[in-house]
Order: sequence, then structure tokens, then C-alpha cells
Amino acid sequence: MQQLAGLYPPIPTPFDEQGKLDLHWLEANLARWSAQPLDGVVMPGSNSEAAFLTAEERVAIWQVCADVLKGSGKRLIAGTGAETTAETIHFTTTAAELGATAALVLPPYFYKPSLTHEVLVEHYQAVAAASPIPLLVYNVPAFTGVDFALPTLLKLAEHTQIVGIKDSSSNIVKMAEVLAQRPDFQVFAGTGSALLPFLSIGAAGGIMALANVAAFPLRRLYDAFRERRMEDARKLQMAVVALNSALTTRFGVSGLKYAMDQTGFYGGPVRRPLLPLSAQARAEFDRILAEVHPLLAG
Amino acid sequence: MQQLAGLYPPIPTPFDEQGKLDLHWLEANLARWSAQPLDGVVMPGSNSEAAFLTAEERVAIWQVCADVLKGSGKRLIAGTGAETTAETIHFTTTAAELGATAALVLPPYFYKPSLTHEVLVEHYQAVAAASPIPLLVYNVPAFTGVDFALPTLLKLAEHTQIVGIKDSSSNIVKMAEVLAQRPDFQVFAGTGSALLPFLSIGAAGGIMALANVAAFPLRRLYDAFRERRMEDARKLQMAVVALNSALTTRFGVSGLKYAMDQTGFYGGPVRRPLLPLSAQARAEFDRILAEVHPLLAG
Amino acid sequence: MQQLAGLYPPIPTPFDEQGKLDLHWLEANLARWSAQPLDGVVMPGSNSEAAFLTAEERVAIWQVCADVLKGSGKRLIAGTGAETTAETIHFTTTAAELGATAALVLPPYFYKPSLTHEVLVEHYQAVAAASPIPLLVYNVPAFTGVDFALPTLLKLAEHTQIVGIKDSSSNIVKMAEVLAQRPDFQVFAGTGSALLPFLSIGAAGGIMALANVAAFPLRRLYDAFRERRMEDARKLQMAVVALNSALTTRFGVSGLKYAMDQTGFYGGPVRRPLLPLSAQARAEFDRILAEVHPLLAG
Amino acid sequence: MQQLAGLYPPIPTPFDEQGKLDLHWLEANLARWSAQPLDGVVMPGSNSEAAFLTAEERVAIWQVCADVLKGSGKRLIAGTGAETTAETIHFTTTAAELGATAALVLPPYFYKPSLTHEVLVEHYQAVAAASPIPLLVYNVPAFTGVDFALPTLLKLAEHTQIVGIKDSSSNIVKMAEVLAQRPDFQVFAGTGSALLPFLSIGAAGGIMALANVAAFPLRRLYDAFRERRMEDARKLQMAVVALNSALTTRFGVSGLKYAMDQTGFYGGPVRRPLLPLSAQARAEFDRILAEVHPLLAG
Repeated sequence: MQQLAGLYPPIPTPFDEQGKLDLHWLEANLARWSAQPLDGVVMPGSNSEAAFLTAEERVAIWQVCADVLKGSGKRLIAGTGAETTAETIHFTTTAAELGATAALVLPPYFYKPSLTHEVLVEHYQAVAAASPIPLLVYNVPAFTGVDFALPTLLKLAEHTQIVGIKDSSSNIVKMAEVLAQRPDFQVFAGTGSALLPFLSIGAAGGIMALANVAAFPLRRLYDAFRERRMEDARKLQMAVVALNSALTTRFGVSGLKYAMDQTGFYGGPVRRPLLPLSAQARAEFDRILAEVHPLLAG
Repeated sequence: MQQLAGLYPPIPTPFDEQGKLDLHWLEANLARWSAQPLDGVVMPGSNSEAAFLTAEERVAIWQVCADVLKGSGKRLIAGTGAETTAETIHFTTTAAELGATAALVLPPYFYKPSLTHEVLVEHYQAVAAASPIPLLVYNVPAFTGVDFALPTLLKLAEHTQIVGIKDSSSNIVKMAEVLAQRPDFQVFAGTGSALLPFLSIGAAGGIMALANVAAFPLRRLYDAFRERRMEDARKLQMAVVALNSALTTRFGVSGLKYAMDQTGFYGGPVRRPLLPLSAQARAEFDRILAEVHPLLAG
Repeated sequence: MQQLAGLYPPIPTPFDEQGKLDLHWLEANLARWSAQPLDGVVMPGSNSEAAFLTAEERVAIWQVCADVLKGSGKRLIAGTGAETTAETIHFTTTAAELGATAALVLPPYFYKPSLTHEVLVEHYQAVAAASPIPLLVYNVPAFTGVDFALPTLLKLAEHTQIVGIKDSSSNIVKMAEVLAQRPDFQVFAGTGSALLPFLSIGAAGGIMALANVAAFPLRRLYDAFRERRMEDARKLQMAVVALNSALTTRFGVSGLKYAMDQTGFYGGPVRRPLLPLSAQARAEFDRILAEVHPLLAG
Repeated sequence: MQQLAGLYPPIPTPFDEQGKLDLHWLEANLARWSAQPLDGVVMPGSNSEAAFLTAEERVAIWQVCADVLKGSGKRLIAGTGAETTAETIHFTTTAAELGATAALVLPPYFYKPSLTHEVLVEHYQAVAAASPIPLLVYNVPAFTGVDFALPTLLKLAEHTQIVGIKDSSSNIVKMAEVLAQRPDFQVFAGTGSALLPFLSIGAAGGIMALANVAAFPLRRLYDAFRERRMEDARKLQMAVVALNSALTTRFGVSGLKYAMDQTGFYGGPVRRPLLPLSAQARAEFDRILAEVHPLLAG
């Protein structure tokens, strides 16, 4: 089974002031992440405004990512979920051809009441059967309204090409139930504040917005855990919690892009309907960044 | 204000056995609906597998609809919602150019936690400002996870180009609250079982999957209500409830397409990941159709 | 089958300034309601702070209600739901002995995940078997988190002693589904803004906080509907919507008691943890009451 | 601040075949738990059928618990939450007089829409002000439908007498947010499968149904964590997951009592409306118990 263990940022998509995709800034950001203690990048994820991208934009982005990461030893995990099985397969095979190591597959989510266990299983099995690269299930009910039940996850885990999950719901009990039955399933924390608890029950790592700007402390946390320096790990976990909240539940993608702009990356504008941070939110964010700033350095 | 009062089916999208869009069957279905007591069609809506269509398919469909309906006195209400404001505007202006009378605008729904009152209001106001045709808000939290709050609806109703709502959540209390303050807002029942209650508080009509196969009894119900034959209206409402449930919450789009196939239209297959009805579901559906069959005739 | 059709207020429980039950004010209020066009009272319901009453207080209240209503032709519908089947039976039989015509039975609601179809059916059937008076199911998921599914309601409706439902969730589609299969099931609107829509599909009446202070306009609405003066009915429905919201979802029991105090009844304080209305809320309430005031007179 | 760190079972309430409280069996069970590596007991909690107990039964139970635990060095944490502030204070002071070390305080939960931040804060502050013993907030939204928000918890944590929380929602991210700002707040895992992840971020222990029958492996897990034997801790955590699910989400209180009966305690019947396990559920439970059996021994 392909081992994907490690730390990954789901990276934002850079747009220019007109809202157009800006691949130069993407390249520049990638170069910077490549020099940080990350195991690769996930693109596009929720934090990448994936829902706002056209099919052509996705492909153009993957090409840049694959080019920059080639030879770096870093992995590209491609976000390939779409509403139809056919389009999901199309994206997954395209990403694989372009050099993605694995795919993070968001489920269809519009026809929620029809997305039964059977429909989800048949969908993922069809994608897995057609995919040359391993798949991670992407569970993010806050955005999709679809929450994978334990029996569905256990069924999907039987397929050799479905190797893990990013659980953005941070359902630690369900993940423990999965890992108790499938210790090799590669579980990834979906948010930075859950990394240490996830690691404690055997998770493979994290795919976390926080890793975009806080790769160094997250790596130190990860290493501390692996070296059983639990008190160090706990302190590092506590130290990044406020920044993590600001980047995710409190200020969303607008907040993440703002933080990128403040920390040496290109964040740039979000696409509408999302709105930029208010002056008040920026001030609050600055306060949080100032507090955590010493920690972010390499 | 453009008056849209009446009964509309959100029509299914015909696909062939390979899942390809089949415009000939669309034309044939449209010809049949045109001869029924309907005020037009909505396309694409949730029942049209809108979430499964490419941008090109939407445009091709609108062209056929506009061509067939031209001169018939029937309205085309185009489904134009998308995840970005820019794409929603693009779809809305395109549909208007092709001859749509109005647009039914699904909100963005992926970044739910960011879709605040302010974000929704700015989004719809931007679309309304750019649109040459009036807009209906489309509230369908069962699919989107976004439920328009009363203050948001009242704010949107202030815009002259935002003329009404299809409320698939059948929230009769909220609709009464809207109509008590905005009696001219054109409220449409979003499901066939709610038509009479919605009419009783001043709704303008219904946009209902049920109208695809039951235009005649729904029109009789509508007329009975307008003629204050309340007992007739109630009996007609009761008579279509079981079929309505089968077409919507019980069997979803697969059920609607099955019913189309059984009643003289072309339903055809759904796109994956949706699955066709099981043999058991078909048998149950046949039983319901047989019971209601005499009622469906013109 | 016992016919309960009509309009009922779930009446508040009067407490004195120390939070003690005040039976004199209860008597005074009852005398006033008896002179209004109501078919009886429901006591205790959610609006009666039922969750805050001891078993002894319930019994004392029923005695007063039964005494005052005796010979008036008005019905006492007793709220008898409790967490255990045994206690629910005890309350139901006690209320019957004291003279209640029927019981409104809230389901158990703490062990939500265990309250399966089977558990709810066995519970209600056991209560019905032991009860000398007919039962109404009380569906109020906003408070209980328990929402009766259609199959459960249809199963309960088979029991001759389970004669109807108060549906405070205003689920007009589900009620249509119930009435389509069980036209004799006595469905009551659970909030004043839903009365007309409920009547349109065959409901038996309403059990509504609004009836505490607006018996006259609700009766006029009811009569207008029965006489097929639909436009009058609609206008009356629209006219009471703002007051209804204020009495229920906007300001809760504190709002209802405030409105009582402003309209010639004794409202008095709520029990803690509920808090009295803020000055701002009272001002808003006064504005709403002033607007609707001419309508409230007999 | 009173330190409560450790492992506690929320113990079931023994009833006889007629559903009557059986204090002899309670005593016998307590004697057995006293000999196990537990730091005390919680009584009554959700697992104790607290919602089914009369006020008199609660007091009788506390007396027995206090008597048996006296001098054992084990703590009695009393469940004292009720719907009114007055009753919650009454239960809390009564429990303190009878010898409880602390109180686990369920919030009021019927009038959910009225239970704002302000109402919850005033309620808990009033209880804390009146209480001679420290309080733990009890967050169990699966049963109450009330989920404490971060700002509410942070506000409550400012009171010296409110010393911690049992979080049965296992919201690891929220607990990290609390602990990042209030490292001394005593957070307890509310279910056995979350113990290790909770400990990893600085939790004080667990209050877990699982501890009723699995005190030994839970203590070994706890000790392994404290001695930084993380791989041992993880294996123990994984080993108890299936039993934990069976005792809680899968089979509820009926399951817990069944497991008690199979492991040397008195479980006995649940009160109605809860139903005993079906034959099929018992067989499934036996299978799970057989698998985990070697682990349960001291």
C-alpha cells in the first residue's frame, strides 16, 4: 500500500485582482512550501476554493504543481471529487497522468438524501477501479452535508486502492472505530488543532490549512510525538490552536489568504461571493499572528 | 413587477443510455408539456440533475427550451445558480439572451459557514443588478444545506429585480412571515403536497416535480382554490400526496424519471452516482401510479 | 371517536414574584378565557413551563382548571407526557380522573438515540391502553429533538385511543401525508401562523400560544375558512403573523407572559433559568401589540 | 482548585423486575467498583437513567453512595442538573450535604431556543454561587440538544467554582480551544474511545460508561500514557473501542446493563420506554464481550 504519511497543506489558489487564476504566484508559493518541512501539497482542497474552479483551471494548476514538485520528493495529492462518477474518474485519471501521487476525493453532495451507503460505495468503488493512483476519502460534512458513516468507511477500506481518509469533522471516536478495525487505513487530521489527538490513535498525519503558514511548528509537533516527548507535543499543539481557528472556522478562506499575505506568501483576493476580511477581522487576525509569530520560523 | 403566477414543472434532463444529453427527447417532452395546462417550465432545477450538467449542456438545453416554447405563451424559468457570483451572472445573462422569462437562482452552497446574511445579500444583489430578467430565490436546504433566514429574504425582496421564492423546505410559517410583510413577493410551493396550503396564504403557485406528470390534477386543484371550492381543492390535494412523495423524498430523481417513462414521457437513465430504482421500488411505484392513474388524465 | 375540533390556548402557568405557583391568578385567567370563543384550554403545554413544574403542581393546576371549566362546555386537554411510560400513564389517568377530556402527550426525549420507531410505538400504545381518555401526540422537535416520522404516526393512528396530533413543527407536507391516509386523524396546528394552511388540508383546529391573547381574530379566521371566505381568512392570518412570532420563536414564554400582562391577563414572571424580556424586547413587543391591538377585541 | 483528575464510571441505577429502585444491588455494585482502580463514581449520569429518577430516588441513591464510599478515598461526583435553576441548586446543595465531592451539572434543555449564552451563563453562575462544592459542566448534545459554545465555556471557566467539563460530544477541537486558553480547566473525556486523544491535549481523565466494566484496561491505558508508553496506550485504546461502542451509541443504557450482568455486576432491567436488548443484540454483544474478555481482568 502506498504510504502517504506526513503533513500537507491544502494550498490556496492564487487569483489576481480581477479574480483570474495567477499561476506565477502559485509557482512562487510552491517554491516556498518546497523548502519547508512538508511532505507535499494537496490541490485543490476546500481551502483552494475548489468549488470555484473550472475544469480547465484545475488542470492548469495540476500542471504547475507537478512541474514544481518534480524531483523534490514532495507529493502532489490532487483533489478530484465531482458531482458525477464520470467526472470524478476523469479528474482522477487526469491528475494521475499529470503526476499526482494520490487523489483526495470529495463525495458528490448535492443529492444528499439519495447518497445512501450503497450509492457512496458504488461511486467510490467505480472511481477506485478506474484510478491508477490511490484514493483518500474526503469527509468534510461542514461543507458537503455528507458525513461518512462507519459501515461505509469500513466497506470502502476493503478496496486496495482506497487507502485512507481526511476527516475534517475531527470525529475522533469514529476514527478510533475505523482504526480499531483497519489499523492500516491512513487517517489524516483535517484541521491543525486535531493533529496530536489524531496521532495519538495512530493517524498517518494531517492535511491542514494551518500547514500553509505553520509548517515548522507542525513538524516539530509531529517529531515530538514520534519521539514520545508528549509534553512538548502538547505545548506545540496548544500554541497553534488560536491561529488554526482563525484560519478555518472563524475567518474561512478569506482568513487563510490574509494570513498568507502576512507571512511571506501570496494570498490575494478570494472569489465572490466570499468577501475579504473586514478591518475588524484583520485587526483580530494581526493580534493572533503577532502572538504566534516567533513559533512560525524555521 | 413581472407576474409569474402559475404552475411549473422543473423538468428532468433526458440522457441516453450512455449518459449523454439527448436533446431530441427533450424536445419531444417539451411538446407534450406545452399541450398541458402549465404556465411554463423550469430548467434546470434540482430535478433536472442540474448539479450534473456542464456549462455547455445548460446552454444547449436552454436553446431547445426557448425554441420549443417560443410563441406558445409558456414561460421558460432558467435555473442559473452557481458557486461563484461571476458564474451565476454569466448563466443568468446567457439564459436571458436565449429567451428565459425569469431565473430561479440557487445560492452558492459549498462554503456554508461563510454564507452569512451579508454574503448572501451581496451575492444576490450583484446578480440582480446584472440581470435583465427577474429572479426567484431558490431555497432548498435539503440539497444545499443553506436555509434562507427571514431577514435575508426580506432584504432581498427590497430589490425590484428579486420578485419571489421557490421554497422547497415548505416552511409555511416563514412564508407567512414573508407574505405578511411583502404581500407582493411571489412565493411558489416547492413540492406538490404543499400547493394548497401555500395558496391559502397567498402564494403565486408552485414549481413542483409533480407537475411533470400530474399537470391536470394540479391545475384542477389550483382552479378549485381560486373558485373557493375548498372541499374539491382539499380532495385533489390529498389525492396526489402519495405520488408526490414517491417522486420526491422517497425515490428522488430516479423515481421521477421512472414515472415519466410510465406516463408517456421520456424519462430515461439518471447519471451516476445516482442509481436506477430497484425492482422493489419499481413495484411500489407501479402500485402508486395505478392508484392515481385515473386522476392524471386531461 | 371523540371530536376535539376547535381552537385552544396552551395556557401559561402563573407564578408569583417568588416563583411560587399562584392558583388565584390561574382561576382569574381561566374565567377570562372561558368568556372567549375558545373550545377549551391545554394545560400544561410547553408554554405553561411544563418542564418546570413538579408533579404536585401539575395536579393542583388540573384541579383548578377542571373546577373552573366544569359546566362551561369547554374542554380541558391535559399535558401528560413524561420521561417514563409509568409516569406518563400516571399523569394521564390522574388528569382523566380530575375531568380532562383528552391528553396531549409529549414523548420522552432525553434518550433520543434510543427512541426508535419501536420504542415510541410501544410507549404510546402502553399509554393509550391504560388511558380512559383519548390521546393527542405532541410533536415539538424544537424543544424535544424528537420528530415523529410518518410511519410512526401512521402506526399510532391505528390505535382507537390515539386520535390526533399537535404538530408544532408545522410540517405541512408530513401532515398532508398523514391526512391522505388517515383523514379522520385530528391534526392541530401548533402555532398561530400555520392555522389557515393546516385548515386548508383538513386539520381539526389549532393549539396555539397565540390563542391566549388573540382568541377573537383566530375565531374569525376559523369561521371565515369554514364559510369559504378565503380572502378574509387570508387577511386575518396575515394580520396575526407578527404577534405570533413575537409570542413564540422570537421571545418565547417570557414574551407570552409579557403579552398576557399587556392584554388584561396575569402573565407574571417566568421561572429561572428563563429571563424576563429586556427593555429593548419589551419596546419591540409594545410596537407589535399596538399595531395588532384593534384586531384583538371581541 | 479542587483536583478531580482520574477515571470515573457514571454508574447505572439498579431496578428490580418491577422497575423499583434496588439499593441493595447498588451497594453490592459499589463495593465491587471500590475495589477497582477507579477514582470514584458519578451518580446519576445519563447512563444512570437520571432522566427517569424522582427527586426522592436521587437522594436515596446519594446516601447509599456516600455511605459506601466514605473512607475509601473514592470521590462521589453527583449529577445535579435540572430544568430550573432553583431545582439545580437544591440538588447540588443536597448532594454536597450528603458528601459529594463535586457536581456534574447537566444544563436545562427543554427550552433550547431560549438557552442563549446569557441564559446559560446566568444559570451556571447562580448554581456555582450557591454551591459548596465545585461544578463540572456536562455537555452531552446527543441527549440534550444543547451544545456549549466556546465563548460560553470560557465565560463559565472564569468562575472559581466551575472547574471543568465532561464533553460527551468528543469535540476534540473545541476542547483544544478551551485548554489553550484555560490549561487548568479540568476536561474529561465523555466516552471511552476518546480517552487517549483527550489525554494527549491535557485532559484530566474520563467519565465513561466503559469504566463500569473496563476499569482495569482503562487504568492501564491511563498509566501507559502518563509513562509515555504511547504504543501501549494506543493498543489499549484500540482494544476497547468495540466494547465502548456497544455500551454507548450502539445499544445505549440497555446495552450497558446487559454488559454489567455479564461481568459480575448487577445490571437488571431498564425502565420503560427503553426496551431490553433483542436476542440478536445480545448475541452480538456476547461476541464483543468474549473478544475483549481477557483484557477486562485486573
